[in-house]
Amino acid sequence: MNADAAFSGKKALITGGLGFIGSNLARRLVGAGAEVTIVDSLIPQYGGNRFNVHDIRERLSVNITDVRDPHAMAQLIRGQDLLFNLAGQTSHVDSMQDPATDLEINAAAQLSILEACKKHNRGIKLVFASTRQLYGRPQYLPVDEKHPIHPVDVNGINKLAGEWYHLLYNDVYGIRACALRLTNTYGPGMRVRDARQTFLGIWIRNAIQGKPILVYGDGSQLRDFNYVDDAVDALLAAATGAQAEGQVFNLGSEEVISLRALAEKLIALNGSGRYEIVPFPAERKAIDIGDYYSDFGKIRAALGWSPKVSLEEGLRRTLDFYGRHGRHYWDEP
Amino acid sequence: MNADAAFSGKKALITGGLGFIGSNLARRLVGAGAEVTIVDSLIPQYGGNRFNVHDIRERLSVNITDVRDPHAMAQLIRGQDLLFNLAGQTSHVDSMQDPATDLEINAAAQLSILEACKKHNRGIKLVFASTRQLYGRPQYLPVDEKHPIHPVDVNGINKLAGEWYHLLYNDVYGIRACALRLTNTYGPGMRVRDARQTFLGIWIRNAIQGKPILVYGDGSQLRDFNYVDDAVDALLAAATGAQAEGQVFNLGSEEVISLRALAEKLIALNGSGRYEIVPFPAERKAIDIGDYYSDFGKIRAALGWSPKVSLEEGLRRTLDFYGRHGRHYWDEP
Repeated sequence: MNADAAFSGKKALITGGLGFIGSNLARRLVGAGAEVTIVDSLIPQYGGNRFNVHDIRERLSVNITDVRDPHAMAQLIRGQDLLFNLAGQTSHVDSMQDPATDLEINAAAQLSILEACKKHNRGIKLVFASTRQLYGRPQYLPVDEKHPIHPVDVNGINKLAGEWYHLLYNDVYGIRACALRLTNTYGPGMRVRDARQTFLGIWIRNAIQGKPILVYGDGSQLRDFNYVDDAVDALLAAATGAQAEGQVFNLGSEEVISLRALAEKLIALNGSGRYEIVPFPAERKAIDIGDYYSDFGKIRAALGWSPKVSLEEGLRRTLDFYGRHGRHYWDEP
Repeated sequence: MNADAAFSGKKALITGGLGFIGSNLARRLVGAGAEVTIVDSLIPQYGGNRFNVHDIRERLSVNITDVRDPHAMAQLIRGQDLLFNLAGQTSHVDSMQDPATDLEINAAAQLSILEACKKHNRGIKLVFASTRQLYGRPQYLPVDEKHPIHPVDVNGINKLAGEWYHLLYNDVYGIRACALRLTNTYGPGMRVRDARQTFLGIWIRNAIQGKPILVYGDGSQLRDFNYVDDAVDALLAAATGAQAEGQVFNLGSEEVISLRALAEKLIALNGSGRYEIVPFPAERKAIDIGDYYSDFGKIRAALGWSPKVSLEEGLRRTLDFYGRHGRHYWDEP
């Protein structure tokens, strides 16, 4: 039996569902026969883009609202089997410039979503998209889930609060929930308009458009990356495995690469382009975390997850996607 | 030179200043010649009580406002040398019943206070009153600052966010801040109307009023306690020592006692009374942390702080205070 069969006929709500990861997840769930409702605010600075579901728009419901609207969320949560809770403010720099908005979305709205589950749907199961950002600057590598928490920006603090509300409601109220701490995720549907979600988006755009890729610092910083299909695999595994309940899992990859090498690889795969090593902008330097890569042994052991798509293959598919569909992503619709 | 001399002529703002710890701190600062402004919301369920400053009310300014009012706070923060940031929602049970309010006060308001410091007074120095609650159920004892964080209630998660905003603004913007993780604090001025702030308040009231003291569970849970004068010593030490900046310190005591033994001690000192061992109410059992006591070696080494007042002496002073002034504390004014 295909693992996706577990989702046939299931009602699934995806917050941030017009965004990068949410829309790829929606596509998989629709293909598996799930009844999918997407919640998205379509705030221009965030990741939502209607084109992300252009191919499946007749096969799911799209509800434009903000996770900060407790009344709308309470209505939408009723009757759902699953909640993939992916909506978030993801820009580290924005979180420092407008910390109150980051708090509203990443902490306060999460708490109100969980309160709605408590009041209206205790049988729901939640998977929360958390982030490696809450570890801060690694004290050792690779970073496992026992690594001390030390966020270096407002976003990391608020995401941590959001994550822990989920685990708390699991432990205290029995509302099944788990959290995945995602590392850099990339692929078709990612925001490439600017560097708000990840620097890799604007790199891909610049490579395709023949503009220089800017590598901050000296380019030696190490990172790991997950292709979006692998991240979706992990979300689905977390939603089905009872072993996931109340747990936090790192995602990650055994392919670790420096930013400079990544820029070179991207240019090689693209067939053209150039990169420039430039000093960190001050507002990024203050919250930079240095080298980072994950130990994802816990989710491999508990849920059998490991990434399948190599960085080279993933970048190739991503370049191909934006080469064909870039016009839907370069600028605001 | 008396350590308190460092505060002569200094302008100090105390949030939660009509509360238990804040008012005792205000008394010390006024005595040291500081120019003290108190901010307090006087929300009836919280710890503020005008009687707490009845003896010093001509020697300080009392400003009734809520730390959730960003405009008032921005005005009050200007020109201050020190901010003792003690205002908070402290009830664990209340935080589970009304998590949004706990978040507003313990997280959102803290972030807006720090933003006001960033905009209007980067030279200010902050001392934040944090809590042992964010360690959750201890994995080992005594609990030092390296102990993993694992809040078991909404209050613990939000207090942690509030604490980390302070450390973040210290690290990123150079706004000097530190946090003290207080353990159970008791003494004159504590809320004794109910068990909202600490069970010990209602125990003291019941002992004095001849009502039974209720000990939850089996009474074997271990705790440490600080008399309020010792907690004030720590706040002042944290405000003066440059070694404190960007740091978190546990408070604690070497006197560790079971709740049953504490009840017996309280009754013996009071000269009369009785206690009953009763099952945990469900809403408290779900968030109980079992045994807890702190390792306070870090603050002892860095700032030379250790508690001076024995539990017996502190309880004696506290019983004496409420025996004389209890009528100002039993019921709402």
